[in-house]
Amino acid sequence: MKTKLRVGMIGGGKNAFIGAVHRAALNMDGLIELSCCALSHDPQVAKESGQALFLPDDRIYTSYEEMIKKESELPAEKRMHFVSIVTPNHVHFEPAMMALEHGFHVVLEKPMVFTLDQAKQLKQKVEETGLLLCLTHTYSGYPMVKQARQMVKDGALGAIRKIWVEYPQGWLSRLSEKEGNIQAAWRTDPARSGKSGAMGDIGTHAAHLAEYISGQKIVKLCADLNIIVEGRLLDDDGAMLLKFDKGATGVLTATQVAAGEENNLRIRIYGEKGGLEWSQQEPNTLIVKWLDGPAQIYRAGNAYLHDVAKHNTRTPGGHPEGYLEAFANIYRNFALTLQARLNGEEPSSLIDFPTVEDGVRGMAFIDNVIASAQSDKKWWDYVI
Amino acid sequence: MKTKLRVGMIGGGKNAFIGAVHRAALNMDGLIELSCCALSHDPQVAKESGQALFLPDDRIYTSYEEMIKKESELPAEKRMHFVSIVTPNHVHFEPAMMALEHGFHVVLEKPMVFTLDQAKQLKQKVEETGLLLCLTHTYSGYPMVKQARQMVKDGALGAIRKIWVEYPQGWLSRLSEKEGNIQAAWRTDPARSGKSGAMGDIGTHAAHLAEYISGQKIVKLCADLNIIVEGRLLDDDGAMLLKFDKGATGVLTATQVAAGEENNLRIRIYGEKGGLEWSQQEPNTLIVKWLDGPAQIYRAGNAYLHDVAKHNTRTPGGHPEGYLEAFANIYRNFALTLQARLNGEEPSSLIDFPTVEDGVRGMAFIDNVIASAQSDKKWWDYVI
Amino acid sequence: MKTKLRVGMIGGGKNAFIGAVHRAALNMDGLIELSCCALSHDPQVAKESGQALFLPDDRIYTSYEEMIKKESELPAEKRMHFVSIVTPNHVHFEPAMMALEHGFHVVLEKPMVFTLDQAKQLKQKVEETGLLLCLTHTYSGYPMVKQARQMVKDGALGAIRKIWVEYPQGWLSRLSEKEGNIQAAWRTDPARSGKSGAMGDIGTHAAHLAEYISGQKIVKLCADLNIIVEGRLLDDDGAMLLKFDKGATGVLTATQVAAGEENNLRIRIYGEKGGLEWSQQEPNTLIVKWLDGPAQIYRAGNAYLHDVAKHNTRTPGGHPEGYLEAFANIYRNFALTLQARLNGEEPSSLIDFPTVEDGVRGMAFIDNVIASAQSDKKWWDYVI
Amino acid sequence: MKTKLRVGMIGGGKNAFIGAVHRAALNMDGLIELSCCALSHDPQVAKESGQALFLPDDRIYTSYEEMIKKESELPAEKRMHFVSIVTPNHVHFEPAMMALEHGFHVVLEKPMVFTLDQAKQLKQKVEETGLLLCLTHTYSGYPMVKQARQMVKDGALGAIRKIWVEYPQGWLSRLSEKEGNIQAAWRTDPARSGKSGAMGDIGTHAAHLAEYISGQKIVKLCADLNIIVEGRLLDDDGAMLLKFDKGATGVLTATQVAAGEENNLRIRIYGEKGGLEWSQQEPNTLIVKWLDGPAQIYRAGNAYLHDVAKHNTRTPGGHPEGYLEAFANIYRNFALTLQARLNGEEPSSLIDFPTVEDGVRGMAFIDNVIASAQSDKKWWDYVI
Repeated sequence: MKTKLRVGMIGGGKNAFIGAVHRAALNMDGLIELSCCALSHDPQVAKESGQALFLPDDRIYTSYEEMIKKESELPAEKRMHFVSIVTPNHVHFEPAMMALEHGFHVVLEKPMVFTLDQAKQLKQKVEETGLLLCLTHTYSGYPMVKQARQMVKDGALGAIRKIWVEYPQGWLSRLSEKEGNIQAAWRTDPARSGKSGAMGDIGTHAAHLAEYISGQKIVKLCADLNIIVEGRLLDDDGAMLLKFDKGATGVLTATQVAAGEENNLRIRIYGEKGGLEWSQQEPNTLIVKWLDGPAQIYRAGNAYLHDVAKHNTRTPGGHPEGYLEAFANIYRNFALTLQARLNGEEPSSLIDFPTVEDGVRGMAFIDNVIASAQSDKKWWDYVI
Repeated sequence: MKTKLRVGMIGGGKNAFIGAVHRAALNMDGLIELSCCALSHDPQVAKESGQALFLPDDRIYTSYEEMIKKESELPAEKRMHFVSIVTPNHVHFEPAMMALEHGFHVVLEKPMVFTLDQAKQLKQKVEETGLLLCLTHTYSGYPMVKQARQMVKDGALGAIRKIWVEYPQGWLSRLSEKEGNIQAAWRTDPARSGKSGAMGDIGTHAAHLAEYISGQKIVKLCADLNIIVEGRLLDDDGAMLLKFDKGATGVLTATQVAAGEENNLRIRIYGEKGGLEWSQQEPNTLIVKWLDGPAQIYRAGNAYLHDVAKHNTRTPGGHPEGYLEAFANIYRNFALTLQARLNGEEPSSLIDFPTVEDGVRGMAFIDNVIASAQSDKKWWDYVI
Repeated sequence: MKTKLRVGMIGGGKNAFIGAVHRAALNMDGLIELSCCALSHDPQVAKESGQALFLPDDRIYTSYEEMIKKESELPAEKRMHFVSIVTPNHVHFEPAMMALEHGFHVVLEKPMVFTLDQAKQLKQKVEETGLLLCLTHTYSGYPMVKQARQMVKDGALGAIRKIWVEYPQGWLSRLSEKEGNIQAAWRTDPARSGKSGAMGDIGTHAAHLAEYISGQKIVKLCADLNIIVEGRLLDDDGAMLLKFDKGATGVLTATQVAAGEENNLRIRIYGEKGGLEWSQQEPNTLIVKWLDGPAQIYRAGNAYLHDVAKHNTRTPGGHPEGYLEAFANIYRNFALTLQARLNGEEPSSLIDFPTVEDGVRGMAFIDNVIASAQSDKKWWDYVI
Repeated sequence: MKTKLRVGMIGGGKNAFIGAVHRAALNMDGLIELSCCALSHDPQVAKESGQALFLPDDRIYTSYEEMIKKESELPAEKRMHFVSIVTPNHVHFEPAMMALEHGFHVVLEKPMVFTLDQAKQLKQKVEETGLLLCLTHTYSGYPMVKQARQMVKDGALGAIRKIWVEYPQGWLSRLSEKEGNIQAAWRTDPARSGKSGAMGDIGTHAAHLAEYISGQKIVKLCADLNIIVEGRLLDDDGAMLLKFDKGATGVLTATQVAAGEENNLRIRIYGEKGGLEWSQQEPNTLIVKWLDGPAQIYRAGNAYLHDVAKHNTRTPGGHPEGYLEAFANIYRNFALTLQARLNGEEPSSLIDFPTVEDGVRGMAFIDNVIASAQSDKKWWDYVI
């Protein structure tokens, strides 16, 4: 007998960007309901935000500590099953640890925590408790990304030789953090964002995507980080040469000062027999290029795709899905896994989502990039 | 004081396509909750489908009649606010009429009903009751369609001269209705679909979009309808020349036998100064062409767009939205209008959704196309 | 033993558009040399234009009559082999007839002549003399058009069901013929252009392309012609429904008032198994769509193409060819045919170019479109 | 009084790729005629190749030495004006030097010579003789590249921050040099190609394009070169981080093992206010992105372009030009410059073409890339 899963949201009050995205994503498939919340550290904002979401007053909490404690005292059939943490980076670790300690599963925004050390502690806690931790590396949720990964895994392209991933945005082309842009303010603030700006915010997505699709791990890198906009405190631009564990080489770029770009994450992977090209801004299309024949246009929602792509789609071909659906795939796969566990079943082999392991790798990525950027040596050996 | 709106769904049980789409759409923004349902005329399927949606047993009804009657007897704070009817075309009219008669607002799939006469009756009922009726012409819900419409309205292109709209699909290229395809079976069956196949199913969308963006109404047409696949009972292909009330001329094509096409609705409109091009399969982009300068690429989620486009978007530029979000816009605009009414407020001027008027025009479109196709005369005067 | 072929050009003096295009095209492959000319009816312009092309004074003629007469008196090894007629439409028939009567082969701009009757006379003359006449329907010269035609011919798509061809331009969106635009002036003037404007100028290209690729001939049509810009004397816009001899139906549009469009000829053809899409503005790409698999991107210059596509290409994949190369293909195929004839050989089966037959069909197209546009009857039976 | 310029071609006999390209390019505008040749070091091939081009026997030479010597003895009105050298890299320096020493201007394929030292000698010889040397960096000949460069120069984008250039090809994904591919054989042979493979062949184009459009020079680089295909002797893949003299940073990639890619040279440049994107495979389009407004699609052949773009175009908008036209622009600009000089005039300020300076920088690029690739140091200071 299945139940609708109950989530308590931490962060994401009025004016937050990513909180609304999480709610749309968790609502989409009707598997999860928002049962309680601690939407802001400001009690007044927390209250108003919770009411705007039609939550009952007794489930609108004014701090995550309160929520976790009070929910853990509720009877099982009413108590939330998991928390969703959508605060800025510096408020990830403590609520995640506390939730796990009180027996709640966790969905967490990336970058997972503030330091690699915290990441390792969190990983240990997850292993101790046996609870689920899901990291919302959204871009790995797209069906055509799953298709690309499967084709690589199946050897369709032969051995992978080149991996090029790029992530240009333009929204930090000016010193917007000084012009009242709230998103810019915390993302460029070392105290809230961590030791990296662009690389932590979007470079981690690019690195995750490259490793996720290719099935190869970065083992060496040679990074150049820049602060392009005068007065900024963290990198807003960077590029690096890469070496992967199974022999591929590549390039990763991530910048937030490519004026005129929106959110143009794009990856190309080439093997002995052909290549793949996927662009987040047209996510329902995967171009597959062949050494010995015409390129093909794989499109989401079609019968010819692998089951793992189909599993991560809701609509037939030509009915485009987007960012919120990719996000919802993360939540759905997490929810199906949790449902299976509650029912003592095995989740389908088509289900996957980013976990605490990806979070540790993401934090290590930031550390290694910064170390390489500060080094005069060409190749930096990746350490975790 | 706002409440979360409660909806009862009619149709859309297991294996139905459009029911799941409606649920994703109405869930997305957290404004509406699915409170009760009559998901199938088969009581067993209705039960199971309702349980799969985590609905309580006492709100899972086995017929729409039962649902409407029983819900109307519930106290106001528990009773559904509106019904959402997602059955095949031949089961639109009766439940819609019954819902209105019992004081429930209605959301309805298109084509609105089975005959133009029914459409007129429904319109009269809506006018009598003063209740809301929302028709889910999804494609008018896209933000870049709203932007296009606004630019035409604002005269950015000058007087509109040409309107070309096309809607190729390929999924009926074979006689799939005889090969176990449930969607194909009812959509090609005159008893369930009505007197037209492709023109009723997708031609109505194309016509609605053309009139919606251009602000012009079809006044004459010259249609050619075909049954391409042998053994089929309804048109699976058609094209027509058009004349509009404010002087534009144009072409509309709709086909379900364009093998290899998914759902490629596309519109181009040209005025004295420039033109617009929008394609449903890449819906976040609107190409604006100019007689005297470079074309522009308008993209959803950007600050330079009109407020009406922004209102119908959830994510910033480069985070693609798709079909479900367009659908959700219809529901959200309906819900915001209904909320406003419940609170005695005026809805924002940025809100719009297709109504019973659009439904009447859609049914008239089918009648006029068929009449023109059967006529030897070149130009058929549109009658409603 | 091969010789470089010698051509005499009629028309195409300074400021003419299409003359320079013909010269670039005939120069490109080094098979033809411009040996003499009669570039203008104005003797001074004819002189200066000839000198600017580095022609010797004794081969710069001031009228086509003079050129044809004097050249026919030269010894064979010096005499031109053929004429190339690039004048406005009303100066096609007489020079073509005179050239043929004096034993010269002819390359001719389209529309071939001024009236269908002239077209038939010219055809008869070609048959009497056994000389070659080549009509420069440029767009059939593109390699990917040849590939498309071959795939249809080989049955790759199954029986063809739908043919959609469109040709939007925007350059006549204003009354430019009254504003000093020379091209606009003659093309909109019935005395120089003939009885049709847009349909004669570009509609004929669209119709030729549709018939050329599909291998089907138009047998019925239902046309709507418009004069959109007030004060214009000939149609600047039109659309028509089509029926073809082997059962396909389709739509053709051609307009010169689609503001913001350049020269956007585009064709889509659908058969039982898949479809083709080709756009003149990106001519090196042919999209092939399949009912049961991913679409393919066929690209010019690749090994996987049919020999007929390869024959009409000069550069390897990724080195784009364009309009002038397509034009040059017409000249090259004509030149290779003429060379073969001079050497008593058979030309390769990969060679083709538009002939007087295409010219007759083009003139008939204009007549039939106008007749249909003036008729109240829906379907007009194509007559030649 | 202008004359048609006479060229003698060195290399480019039967089966050569680039020779035919040069001939199409120099033929295209009717400003130059191929007057003599030394097409192969094999006398028989030289003869036959010359005859196939319809050259008179006394102007078909069997070595470049013979050609240069004999031509220099001809009277001025018959003698060639310049040579065009289209041999493999190792046969560039000697014929170029000899031509200059005999008073002939030179058009030369890139990379200019075999070593940086030769490049410097050649530069000195050009300066001594005052003759013209034109290097065929084709891609700088495209009209939209000229437009891009002009927009950067005019400050339309503000200060340039980022320069990303990439050049993926896939044709060396296998060891084709051992499978009878003549092009592959010499390009991967250190004795004929020089010390670099992919970087010399195509990386030089990418570097030239980046510097040409941006107006900035590379001053530091950090390169990674790879031999991906086992058994190959020269790099077939590489990537590098770049620093430019006016403050931009960037990335350059060039690979010949990106299976499925044709010739996909592409550049993106971002400044404070916006960015530019140009792709060689769709060369008539330049995307201009703006920080504060919709992106624009600049298209070749339109009235709104800068005169320098118009000067390098033959056809109106929508009539695509391609690789041969870009090549022809190099020849035309060279020819117009030479004509002007012969007539004692100043060439138009709209005219430019790559010179011996570009050749020196190209050879230096190869040297610096190799030095950096062999170094453990991150940043290599560019030396010339």
